Amino acid sequence: MAGRFITFEGPDGAGKTSVLNALMPVIQAHVETPVKLTREPGGAEISEKIRTLILDPANTAMDAKTEALLYAASRRQHLVEVIRPALAKGALVICDRFVDSSVAYQGGGREIGAEAVLAMNQFATDGMSPELTIYLDIPSAEGLARIKAHRASRQYDRLDQEQLAFHERVRATYLALAQAQPQRIKTVDASQPLEDVIKACEAVLKAHLGAAWQSCKEETL
Amino acid sequence: MAGRFITFEGPDGAGKTSVLNALMPVIQAHVETPVKLTREPGGAEISEKIRTLILDPANTAMDAKTEALLYAASRRQHLVEVIRPALAKGALVICDRFVDSSVAYQGGGREIGAEAVLAMNQFATDGMSPELTIYLDIPSAEGLARIKAHRASRQYDRLDQEQLAFHERVRATYLALAQAQPQRIKTVDASQPLEDVIKACEAVLKAHLGAAWQSCKEETL
Repeated sequence: MAGRFITFEGPDGAGKTSVLNALMPVIQAHVETPVKLTREPGGAEISEKIRTLILDPANTAMDAKTEALLYAASRRQHLVEVIRPALAKGALVICDRFVDSSVAYQGGGREIGAEAVLAMNQFATDGMSPELTIYLDIPSAEGLARIKAHRASRQYDRLDQEQLAFHERVRATYLALAQAQPQRIKTVDASQPLEDVIKACEAVLKAHLGAAWQSCKEETL
Repeated sequence: MAGRFITFEGPDGAGKTSVLNALMPVIQAHVETPVKLTREPGGAEISEKIRTLILDPANTAMDAKTEALLYAASRRQHLVEVIRPALAKGALVICDRFVDSSVAYQGGGREIGAEAVLAMNQFATDGMSPELTIYLDIPSAEGLARIKAHRASRQYDRLDQEQLAFHERVRATYLALAQAQPQRIKTVDASQPLEDVIKACEAVLKAHLGAAWQSCKEETL
């Protein structure tokens, strides 16, 4: 593969979307290759259909392992249709959530077991792992409070119906992953003000990409 | 689990459905417990929705591993909603296709690899295996000829579009499974006339169930 593959992870309410939206122009100003931001289902039609199934609040009878298998199926198709073609063109692919999310949410949160979920996902990804993962860490109560503030007027999906204990298991699993794989997973404190989170992420990317992270033509950022 | 779990396997055209339909009253006449015949998706609503996705001819871009993960997700839900509750009630559950089908079709037929598909399915089933599997074996060309004769006037689904080489890989994988697990998997020659296939299956069931296979009250069968 000619391109590079980096993921962002974190519990709900960590602010991944805001951080990534703000970071994208910064990254594009510093790297020469095309930069592709994607998240599952990422426009892959089959993945979209699978996602609709997973998030349908009507499917209350869905078993946790069924859910994990459906996420892995959606991920597989997104990998084949979106990520790999972009990497083949030499892009820097930034993916919002990947295997670590399933390990944290289904493995830890739903208590299926991190190792079993990881092994099953390695089937889905042919063992592919990002070269760098930025983990946005936030205390569970704080993350949940942010979600509630944002979504007060919107209908909750099935995942949002979960409670604090679930989110604490998710965070604990993320922290265990970061501790076990310090070379790949870099933790950023997401309870800081947004602009500090963005600066911290930028510093991690700069350190990781080295020579591929170039000075901006114009120092406007 | 109080019940017993037996599966039927075989390539398309082996006649599983006809055999099972004919066998059911025979089995019911010989065992005291309730007998439940089921096949994925088996009425589990989520499994039905997943199945619709898999078989939709519009999804031509579906990757083989995506397909395998979707079958496993459908199987998981069928296991949780249908098979386990029936076993908990003490039923003899007869399932038309289970993990071996994925190993043969996706692992062998689509060349993902039998071991990888088996391991992923063990995640889905918590390692559950039938105590007996009757494998209806038929040469691939003969099985395909039967399918074509039956479905001449019906639209082919995506799986039917596959060619002879695919079906030969499926059969080879089934035969390898049967050779590797002779205690669990009993092979019946499905190219015989239907009534001989049924008699052969009956003999296998009688030998396996032993004391649980009782004489009929009336010898009408």
